[in-house]
Amino acid sequence: MGDLLGVAVLGAGHMGADHIRRLDGVVSGARVAAVADPDTDRAKEAVAGLDGVSVHTDPVSALAAPGVQAVLVASPGPAHEDALLAAFARGLPVLCEKPMVPDSTGALRVVEAEARLGRRLAQIGFMRRYDAEYRRLKSLLDDGGLGRPLMLHCTHRNVSSPPHFTSAMLINSSVSHEIDAARWLLGQELTAVTVLRPASSAGAPEGLIDPQFVLFETERGALVDVEVFVNCGFGYQVRCEAVCERGSARIGDEHTMVVTARGGAREEVAQDYLVRFADAYDREVQAWVDATRQGRVSGPSVWDGYAASVVAEAGVRALETGGRTTVELAPRPDLYAEVSR
Amino acid sequence: MGDLLGVAVLGAGHMGADHIRRLDGVVSGARVAAVADPDTDRAKEAVAGLDGVSVHTDPVSALAAPGVQAVLVASPGPAHEDALLAAFARGLPVLCEKPMVPDSTGALRVVEAEARLGRRLAQIGFMRRYDAEYRRLKSLLDDGGLGRPLMLHCTHRNVSSPPHFTSAMLINSSVSHEIDAARWLLGQELTAVTVLRPASSAGAPEGLIDPQFVLFETERGALVDVEVFVNCGFGYQVRCEAVCERGSARIGDEHTMVVTARGGAREEVAQDYLVRFADAYDREVQAWVDATRQGRVSGPSVWDGYAASVVAEAGVRALETGGRTTVELAPRPDLYAEVSR
Amino acid sequence: MGDLLGVAVLGAGHMGADHIRRLDGVVSGARVAAVADPDTDRAKEAVAGLDGVSVHTDPVSALAAPGVQAVLVASPGPAHEDALLAAFARGLPVLCEKPMVPDSTGALRVVEAEARLGRRLAQIGFMRRYDAEYRRLKSLLDDGGLGRPLMLHCTHRNVSSPPHFTSAMLINSSVSHEIDAARWLLGQELTAVTVLRPASSAGAPEGLIDPQFVLFETERGALVDVEVFVNCGFGYQVRCEAVCERGSARIGDEHTMVVTARGGAREEVAQDYLVRFADAYDREVQAWVDATRQGRVSGPSVWDGYAASVVAEAGVRALETGGRTTVELAPRPDLYAEVSR
Amino acid sequence: MGDLLGVAVLGAGHMGADHIRRLDGVVSGARVAAVADPDTDRAKEAVAGLDGVSVHTDPVSALAAPGVQAVLVASPGPAHEDALLAAFARGLPVLCEKPMVPDSTGALRVVEAEARLGRRLAQIGFMRRYDAEYRRLKSLLDDGGLGRPLMLHCTHRNVSSPPHFTSAMLINSSVSHEIDAARWLLGQELTAVTVLRPASSAGAPEGLIDPQFVLFETERGALVDVEVFVNCGFGYQVRCEAVCERGSARIGDEHTMVVTARGGAREEVAQDYLVRFADAYDREVQAWVDATRQGRVSGPSVWDGYAASVVAEAGVRALETGGRTTVELAPRPDLYAEVSR
Repeated sequence: MGDLLGVAVLGAGHMGADHIRRLDGVVSGARVAAVADPDTDRAKEAVAGLDGVSVHTDPVSALAAPGVQAVLVASPGPAHEDALLAAFARGLPVLCEKPMVPDSTGALRVVEAEARLGRRLAQIGFMRRYDAEYRRLKSLLDDGGLGRPLMLHCTHRNVSSPPHFTSAMLINSSVSHEIDAARWLLGQELTAVTVLRPASSAGAPEGLIDPQFVLFETERGALVDVEVFVNCGFGYQVRCEAVCERGSARIGDEHTMVVTARGGAREEVAQDYLVRFADAYDREVQAWVDATRQGRVSGPSVWDGYAASVVAEAGVRALETGGRTTVELAPRPDLYAEVSR
Repeated sequence: MGDLLGVAVLGAGHMGADHIRRLDGVVSGARVAAVADPDTDRAKEAVAGLDGVSVHTDPVSALAAPGVQAVLVASPGPAHEDALLAAFARGLPVLCEKPMVPDSTGALRVVEAEARLGRRLAQIGFMRRYDAEYRRLKSLLDDGGLGRPLMLHCTHRNVSSPPHFTSAMLINSSVSHEIDAARWLLGQELTAVTVLRPASSAGAPEGLIDPQFVLFETERGALVDVEVFVNCGFGYQVRCEAVCERGSARIGDEHTMVVTARGGAREEVAQDYLVRFADAYDREVQAWVDATRQGRVSGPSVWDGYAASVVAEAGVRALETGGRTTVELAPRPDLYAEVSR
Repeated sequence: MGDLLGVAVLGAGHMGADHIRRLDGVVSGARVAAVADPDTDRAKEAVAGLDGVSVHTDPVSALAAPGVQAVLVASPGPAHEDALLAAFARGLPVLCEKPMVPDSTGALRVVEAEARLGRRLAQIGFMRRYDAEYRRLKSLLDDGGLGRPLMLHCTHRNVSSPPHFTSAMLINSSVSHEIDAARWLLGQELTAVTVLRPASSAGAPEGLIDPQFVLFETERGALVDVEVFVNCGFGYQVRCEAVCERGSARIGDEHTMVVTARGGAREEVAQDYLVRFADAYDREVQAWVDATRQGRVSGPSVWDGYAASVVAEAGVRALETGGRTTVELAPRPDLYAEVSR
Repeated sequence: MGDLLGVAVLGAGHMGADHIRRLDGVVSGARVAAVADPDTDRAKEAVAGLDGVSVHTDPVSALAAPGVQAVLVASPGPAHEDALLAAFARGLPVLCEKPMVPDSTGALRVVEAEARLGRRLAQIGFMRRYDAEYRRLKSLLDDGGLGRPLMLHCTHRNVSSPPHFTSAMLINSSVSHEIDAARWLLGQELTAVTVLRPASSAGAPEGLIDPQFVLFETERGALVDVEVFVNCGFGYQVRCEAVCERGSARIGDEHTMVVTARGGAREEVAQDYLVRFADAYDREVQAWVDATRQGRVSGPSVWDGYAASVVAEAGVRALETGGRTTVELAPRPDLYAEVSR
């Protein structure tokens, strides 16, 4: 397919460094052309050993660097809006990590900006859409053989939460993945949300409401429930059961090597999302590189990023008020005719 | 243990006939001494081939028949209150099928009557407490190694509902099993209930709200969610996952013979509760016979039967109103110091 | 079905005591009428609390005791031949624990004695035929939907072997269950046997050849392989996969409660055959009591007991010689027209 | 890591075309520089749309083409020896598909040629060593926590065999994967082989001996049994259970999405090795590209390719004779100090 795609990576933290490694050594057809991070040492370290990469503190200067043909945004959430608008201004295709923009007002500005361009430039990093099991489930639901989906039962568990993780972040950081996954699997917008608070675990930090049980309603009457438990103590576990009119389908009970020894039969549980979804990240970035080199944009859109922001904000309000909260979306521009597939 | 326990069976319908077969040919230590049913032919047919059984139309006359030492109540629910009070009046131990008494006012009268006696005579037929998987889960929770239980995720699915099944019956007939199981597993009373209505399945009869998603809260803050779907089309499936502070445990994904042939790897799903819980019924009746012959009463109490009625009534109101409904129990007599174990 | 069947139990050791408990408190329709054991104290202890049981040191005197209508033989293997012949002489139905008779010459004498009677009196205690999973597999094979069975892959593992367990006993005590199960599942006689010796486990006692890998050939060309490993250290595990022309079916990977906690997802493995096959023993004895009360004899025949002895003897020779050993059966009396179903 | 590695691909058939697609669009750091196939049209089609690829009919001319820095051999087996020797002559690193060389005499010449060079240039395409499940099993065995491995139970099933597939090819084409996997997992050479012939399936072509049951012995006394069944009718299924002194571990019972619908709970079985091992091929080629760009050679060696040939030849003799056949390897050059890890 010709020359390698030159990518500017914004942000050289945990996620950015991982994407640099991926662009260099895992996916085909791309190379890192520039990196930007306020911490120059961190940026240099992330590209150590790579040739032809310019290092910047300012994202805009990175976008203008020689050889840059596309942008991967892995900086902190509050910097995303400016980065996306700058990429749009230069006509650069962009893959933006989630959350697209943390607040829905800013997210809407991004939607409007791209809609004004009249063509898609951005793909949002909802990587579960690239996971093999989720794709199999999506394909089964789209196929229609089991009838309409009526309910999704979801589980999202982490070993433990990082420092400073707040009760609201269980919704707008953890459950935000389920928000996008539910919209995508069902091909429907979410219309209301309720958050229930079971007794918090003694294993959670003082004051953190954990676990939570979140209920979403959809525009065609499906119900989505999510157990989110970020201090479950034993592993990273993401499961989804879709209950349809004529059957159900379940993913996320991985089953690879079974070891039987004193104590019973045992299977490993992944400890980290980078393990569970390693392939999904690889496939996501490869798909973005392939599409970009062919002049296409596919995958989750800025509308998906915006909708996720609005639903997450409604979820946080629902957590705070204890009541059912409706989700109010702006009118959808024609460019985003339906939930992206 | 000496002579066989003479049992009067009230009701010779589907359930009563099955219990007669069980007392005669499966469990040890009991015999059918009398049977009562308004339909004499049906009663005679149910005991055909058995010796020494007197046949009655009137339950009270059956209790007074020669050789009767204990009573098994398998008549329709509305007849249970009179049957229980008659058994109490004669001091006869009794195993009463669920629902103990369909309405909570009548159920409370039974509680008060037994409390006045000052000793337990009745065991209520919540047979899940005798299922091997449920007992394993109960034992794990009681053991405490996984910490406090925070949530129960329950599924209750039937192939199809019988004629005349109403939306309220999803709560007070189907979910009533989960009501008792949750109280027993957690050792806590349920304090509030909310019923959500996802889009109804095209596979359900016109007008039936099916599936439903029921949320219970408990006195110590656990959350119990139940998917009840009585026209799921594929099988009888009862599952329960208990999520605790340090781990989770799941039952109900039976796994016996795996057949791999064109179309994939496949496992049977039970089609009927009499298949899934056949052993539980056998163990329940054997436990009752054994205890009775030893002069003991164990198992679910009339308080459990009463509490199930109250919670089910609150659930039906919650279904009708769409709101959260609290559960109001009468004061608990000392005889029933805690949720029966 | 009228009065209880009076049973004489020969042998009051581990197995005999367990059967006495079963006849008294688990199965329906029988009672213990007599018990015989050279150790009178042991016999008395096994029937403590039971009424109307006579205690004997001599088996023959137990058979002649008042109320004895049938015999359950649970004495040591060398005593079985005399017990069976004595039961035949009195025309008493008998359930005989395995091995029917340890040596094939004695086993053949039992076959000939029953054949002379011209009717079956004995059922041999191959209890796997009463296990729910084995029955499901048998039913699937008989159904024919998967085509002819070509191979059985079997596993037989114990935590550890008892003292004085010899290398030959892996064949004639442990694998003897698979010998009968294979004959029954396939409806074919076994015609040759080879025993391979992988390196012995450091967990096995000095000098014990453990594990062994045993290969059986059948009269219609199926192949049966058995891993027998009696010091595997972790549990009692019995599995069987039948590979047919159009699919395979596997039993023995029990899957009941899955516990997920630090360390992964975990399932218990049974530690003991009395746990794994508890239901099978109950069903076996109930089936025998029911048939006997109806004047029928069903289940594994003395021919099955004889065939198991001959195959086991060939297996031990194969272990000793390292070569393939053919199985030579006496002509089959008409009374045993085919492998019992 | 600098410029892309220029690869000459020899052979543009099914496998070669797949590797060209992989080098171009999946793995990072490589590009196709030349392709050789006697069928020029096929070669051109395989590289359609790629820039800078020279097309050759003669493999040697492809090796000499501009930009070629490494060789991937995907031509038919009989052409491999010449290709490997030509690569050695030019000092080019080479990834050679299996079988390395179909006959052991030719394979030995390749070993001797590389040994004379004094350094490794070739990696042999035993891709199972790059499969995630096999690697997990290998790592568990190497870790030693379960004690010494005593047995491997392996299954290798295909839906149906291609035309002209012979009974010998069940050994030297299908089982050759298990031969390498067993050597690698155990870190031991195989020393003897026996092939048993259960009744052939009615689903196999007339005259094909299918299934077969193959037994390998190893230098330290482990036993490896392989069911190979290439017309099983239902799927591509590769399983391996390692039985060790203190536990067992099993891979290959994939378990991803479980669909429950009328007929039971169901999981897909892969239909094709390119599905089951797709990731393994990707990882294999990526590992080869990465190592080559760093000037290293890793992975399966020509000794592994030679040993596989010798064992497969012994297996075919064992199939023909029906007896146990010993495996005779030439002395191992120091360059291949042990079974490659």
